[in-house]
Amino acid sequence: MAFVIIREAKEGDCGNILRLIRELAEYEKLSDQVKISEEALRADGFGETPFYHCLVAEVLSAPGEPQGPCVVGYGLYYFSYSTWKGRNIYLEDIYVKPEYRGQGIGSKIIKKVAEVALDKGCSQLRLAVLDWNKRAMDLYKALGAQDLTEAEGWHCFCFEEEAMRELAGK
Amino acid sequence: MAFVIIREAKEGDCGNILRLIRELAEYEKLSDQVKISEEALRADGFGETPFYHCLVAEVLSAPGEPQGPCVVGYGLYYFSYSTWKGRNIYLEDIYVKPEYRGQGIGSKIIKKVAEVALDKGCSQLRLAVLDWNKRAMDLYKALGAQDLTEAEGWHCFCFEEEAMRELAGK
Repeated sequence: MAFVIIREAKEGDCGNILRLIRELAEYEKLSDQVKISEEALRADGFGETPFYHCLVAEVLSAPGEPQGPCVVGYGLYYFSYSTWKGRNIYLEDIYVKPEYRGQGIGSKIIKKVAEVALDKGCSQLRLAVLDWNKRAMDLYKALGAQDLTEAEGWHCFCFEEEAMRELAGK
Repeated sequence: MAFVIIREAKEGDCGNILRLIRELAEYEKLSDQVKISEEALRADGFGETPFYHCLVAEVLSAPGEPQGPCVVGYGLYYFSYSTWKGRNIYLEDIYVKPEYRGQGIGSKIIKKVAEVALDKGCSQLRLAVLDWNKRAMDLYKALGAQDLTEAEGWHCFCFEEEAMRELAGK
């Protein structure tokens, strides 16, 4: 079995991360919505004020195997804020390539994000899941998460750019 | 009718903001969840790396009126990130005191947040609403927002601190 490490992403990982972002969006059946570029990922994650942070899951090949290390999953997060509890982490995306699932890589990524959250004084780790993605929902629940849409009735709302421009008269 | 301005919050507003945070949580029937202190709001919003930003709605009294300016609403937001579209703004809370509703103050706050979002190159403004809060849902929809839980099936999930500690083994 391959050896997997979870490490912080470097700027040079952005190409691989973008490929995985596109795979995840295809899995979510929403791939027409991906507009981001590798350049934007580099600028927004690795500038002076990063807009996000990212962990990658890397498979290391055994000595003698021809293939080098290979990024097979990622978890992309940022710091958010709760007016009830203070600092939070929001896990925007978590993804593991289908052929590497069932080995606990997703759980390892979530555990690492939880460690970062605690180190930074965050009291919650939030994320959003599509209701038909039972596999993901079951995993998060098994790891101790609560479905707040089910429990309290929270709905996610979004103003897209055009709506914002109308609002702001721009 | 009183004159209302929407302005950036200053550190000295934190006491008023905390009172409004508590009022909002009571309105949402979840006030037992408010653990934040004025000190945390000061430290997290007005340090070197702010974890949130806040707008306040202030009612100015007419000349000769005894009462000074009075904070009657707020909108608290932070920068978030979409792997589909890049930089976003997340409006964590928006609240107007009941006796000042129906004057368009909530819409003014959202418009101002949309302006900030566009100025900062954000392509979405996201927020979460409780499903029984029809008044708020109707307002956001009327202003151009989409209910992504309804339209695409997104559910909000959350790991609380205890679940994170178990995950991280801390």
